Amino acid sequence: MAQAKNLAESVIFPKGQKITNNYFIGGAWLEMLVPADSPLNCPIGNVTFEPGARNNWHKHAGGQILLVTGGTGYYQEEGKPAQVIREGDVVEIPSDVKHWHGATADSWFAHIAISTNIHMGETEWLEPVTDEAYDQL
Amino acid sequence: MAQAKNLAESVIFPKGQKITNNYFIGGAWLEMLVPADSPLNCPIGNVTFEPGARNNWHKHAGGQILLVTGGTGYYQEEGKPAQVIREGDVVEIPSDVKHWHGATADSWFAHIAISTNIHMGETEWLEPVTDEAYDQL
Repeated sequence: MAQAKNLAESVIFPKGQKITNNYFIGGAWLEMLVPADSPLNCPIGNVTFEPGARNNWHKHAGGQILLVTGGTGYYQEEGKPAQVIREGDVVEIPSDVKHWHGATADSWFAHIAISTNIHMGETEWLEPVTDEAYDQL
Repeated sequence: MAQAKNLAESVIFPKGQKITNNYFIGGAWLEMLVPADSPLNCPIGNVTFEPGARNNWHKHAGGQILLVTGGTGYYQEEGKPAQVIREGDVVEIPSDVKHWHGATADSWFAHIAISTNIHMGETEWLEPVTDEAYDQL
């Protein structure tokens, strides 16, 4: 059971360092598992969110894949309801689709994030998911 | 502790179907998490090996990444000693490097396999890892 794990220490892969950029609300941690400059052209990060933490709305030019390894979180694409996602879920985020992801209010949440088609360009960071919007989920 | 898990049912992601091609010795199971025809161009499979199971020597034209999610296994590149790999290990397999991977003799083994640079070509399957070679590890 996920609840029996100490999700605050992430799942399987290292928790890494606290993210200090301005694109997150709440505490989130990142460990790069495969670097951006690998000839494999497939950067992979392990991301761990404390309860209530989430990233801003953003777009990936080449898309991204999320493999959920623990806890309960949200994934929302613009114009659609937020989906609750859990350990074992896989999310294929299409190129240039505006979205955000993060933990639910009462659970730590960990996912592996795989950047795809990186030759197509960078991530574009947009506005935060406000407390007003998040608290209605 | 990994030993406390029921690794025979894989880890986090579904175990999937038993692999029936001729490129494996022993029982191995595959669940595709992201299909080969996704526009994300990044096929991902969850692979689970019973103790002693391994794939044949092979090469990926565009490389592959292994994220080890449970158990203890081997990864060996041609001309180098086999490495023991465990839960939390990450292996970057370079383009066109001849290699094999699989479980140790006494442990189930599970990894996520991420195909990279798929525009560069297919996987080339080669000779089996013989019992004589495996039993010397």
